[in-house]
Amino acid sequence: MQFNYLNQVRTKNPLVHCITNMVVANYTANGLLALGASPLMSANPEEVAEIQNFTQGLLLNIGTLNGTDVEAMILAGKAANKLAVPVVLDPVGVGATACRKNAVAKLLAEVDFALIRGNAGEIASLAEVDWQAKGVDAGSGQADFAELSKLVAKKYQTIVAVSGETDFISDGKQLAKIANGSPLFPKITGSGCLLGAVGAAFVGVSPDTDYFNAVVEGCTTFAVAGELAAAGLANHQTGSFAVALLDQLSAITPATLQQRAKISYE
Amino acid sequence: MQFNYLNQVRTKNPLVHCITNMVVANYTANGLLALGASPLMSANPEEVAEIQNFTQGLLLNIGTLNGTDVEAMILAGKAANKLAVPVVLDPVGVGATACRKNAVAKLLAEVDFALIRGNAGEIASLAEVDWQAKGVDAGSGQADFAELSKLVAKKYQTIVAVSGETDFISDGKQLAKIANGSPLFPKITGSGCLLGAVGAAFVGVSPDTDYFNAVVEGCTTFAVAGELAAAGLANHQTGSFAVALLDQLSAITPATLQQRAKISYE
Amino acid sequence: MQFNYLNQVRTKNPLVHCITNMVVANYTANGLLALGASPLMSANPEEVAEIQNFTQGLLLNIGTLNGTDVEAMILAGKAANKLAVPVVLDPVGVGATACRKNAVAKLLAEVDFALIRGNAGEIASLAEVDWQAKGVDAGSGQADFAELSKLVAKKYQTIVAVSGETDFISDGKQLAKIANGSPLFPKITGSGCLLGAVGAAFVGVSPDTDYFNAVVEGCTTFAVAGELAAAGLANHQTGSFAVALLDQLSAITPATLQQRAKISYE
Repeated sequence: MQFNYLNQVRTKNPLVHCITNMVVANYTANGLLALGASPLMSANPEEVAEIQNFTQGLLLNIGTLNGTDVEAMILAGKAANKLAVPVVLDPVGVGATACRKNAVAKLLAEVDFALIRGNAGEIASLAEVDWQAKGVDAGSGQADFAELSKLVAKKYQTIVAVSGETDFISDGKQLAKIANGSPLFPKITGSGCLLGAVGAAFVGVSPDTDYFNAVVEGCTTFAVAGELAAAGLANHQTGSFAVALLDQLSAITPATLQQRAKISYE
Repeated sequence: MQFNYLNQVRTKNPLVHCITNMVVANYTANGLLALGASPLMSANPEEVAEIQNFTQGLLLNIGTLNGTDVEAMILAGKAANKLAVPVVLDPVGVGATACRKNAVAKLLAEVDFALIRGNAGEIASLAEVDWQAKGVDAGSGQADFAELSKLVAKKYQTIVAVSGETDFISDGKQLAKIANGSPLFPKITGSGCLLGAVGAAFVGVSPDTDYFNAVVEGCTTFAVAGELAAAGLANHQTGSFAVALLDQLSAITPATLQQRAKISYE
Repeated sequence: MQFNYLNQVRTKNPLVHCITNMVVANYTANGLLALGASPLMSANPEEVAEIQNFTQGLLLNIGTLNGTDVEAMILAGKAANKLAVPVVLDPVGVGATACRKNAVAKLLAEVDFALIRGNAGEIASLAEVDWQAKGVDAGSGQADFAELSKLVAKKYQTIVAVSGETDFISDGKQLAKIANGSPLFPKITGSGCLLGAVGAAFVGVSPDTDYFNAVVEGCTTFAVAGELAAAGLANHQTGSFAVALLDQLSAITPATLQQRAKISYE
């Protein structure tokens, strides 16, 4: 595989507008800066549509929805769609409450997404009846998530990235599996949320709207950076890992990706 | 003393719902993850009651109250009470403004708390007339806080944990003093707020509603982790301490507690 | 130059009330604590005026304005003005959207500021017609920002601090340039926002309302701390830099400033 997008992120410095949760806003901003992108955080309905005029990617993350957040997300998402700014959805905990399910249903009905990024449980929840009809729960193994990511991608005509020990990425037809990563990722808050923002940066520099390779490279970059950050750390050094991940996102090069990427296609 | 709760936190991974302030949300989430618990942050009135159906502990922290936060806290707290989910109150800066005093008065009137955690000034403020009637201010020495924590615990029929150079924990009858800790704790933001969340995790795994030992072990775990985090650091390394504290919360074991705990009872 | 203010910050521990954005609230609080000041974050219209009764400095940062934030800022700002508490404005991204421009216009009309701190683009935007009439954009060189900081300071009868590779500080007559700093500053989020809060701490301990030297020393302290934090770090270690900057803000002394400061006057 060619790794062309990372250098594009470094040279184009895409502005990524994040409507994201208050827990991860700082870490997401630092992660985007480390990577070479520029973060802009705002959930203000009065300005979110206007912001799309000068942004290269938009992230909608429902982690701590409140007040006018869904309204702001729809305003931003529709404006981004009109201006051909790619939009990423991170449906944090979508299966947990009715409120989150309704918000995601509204967002999926009103906005076209270039990418949906979630963990196994979130993507399983998006699959709804079809997945449950198989009587399989979110932790049931790799083969199922290969199928599931395809199914959800088809259903919403988007790309789906399922993060976990192995990442699954599908556009409904193609399927890539990334075996890089670290068990320290789920031990820090916001690693998945940051990956959603990284995804927005990578699709944001794509010269065309076929985002599959951009997403695969974005997820690979993140997973390999985590692998390198964890190298030399004990499994309990979660605080140190959060710091080292930023250092590695800043240091990582296409050559390192070429050397360490463990991507397979089905 | 037996240290039984820490391993329970590690094996049960209690979900702790935090309605907390925006300054410390990230650090609180990372601290809970480091310890082995799972954080869920939400202050959305539409979902906070529903969340109690699958949570093991609830933290209400008034650090940056705004908008519908008090409403959300009462909805969450009442639902938690009904479902026997233990609730922790962190009355941040309660003595500072009328707004904070009123909010805490409302919360104390509407919600039953398993634990109130605060610093000396906050617990002194909760003691109100009785404390002021003695003409003693918040910085007046250890003997007073031993008395004060008992007094406030009795008044609100809860457990009170006063954090400081020495921690005081009382259920109105028993009193424990923990002499572990580090002068670096007050040099980072949110160390007390994180302790409130840690308290929610420890009472959340308790097999019964006699939470005194769970709180004492939770506070000891946090204080010893801080002691270990500070070891090898100069007194000015506040940034490094915040990172090291997460590493130590993740690494700490019951054996370490057994070895280092300085708990006395009155 | 005498460096008298840093020790004042350390001994007086000024309480700095920050109405700031959710991205940087944690880092700002940790930075103020490291320096020796005390942070208080609140954007609650019900208490922000009352808070001015016991605060030594107020920061208004428009980074993620939403809901009642502008209202709260005006309430706090007017109360601070009445009580002679110095107020700092950080007009984050003021040129980016109409909403931010309007908010800053309102704030400048209703509140007297002791200091406006911004990056080149933000200060250029505040200069409005006069600056655009010269047909010069924000990146056009040092000589222009020397002129520009004076111009904006005169226009709003305040002190202006423009942060960048070189910092420019003017009260409309005097101009100081600080050549300390690190290329790692713009690689972490909130370094500029934290400088605004540091500015509030330094003017907050000033014995009189001639704040020029306090601002120059505050900016120098921050720039030199960054220089020391970057020493020994590779240019890609952005995560480590954020941690090291807090350590250095805590460690820095007037003697170090005396030794390393590169301040020139025009």
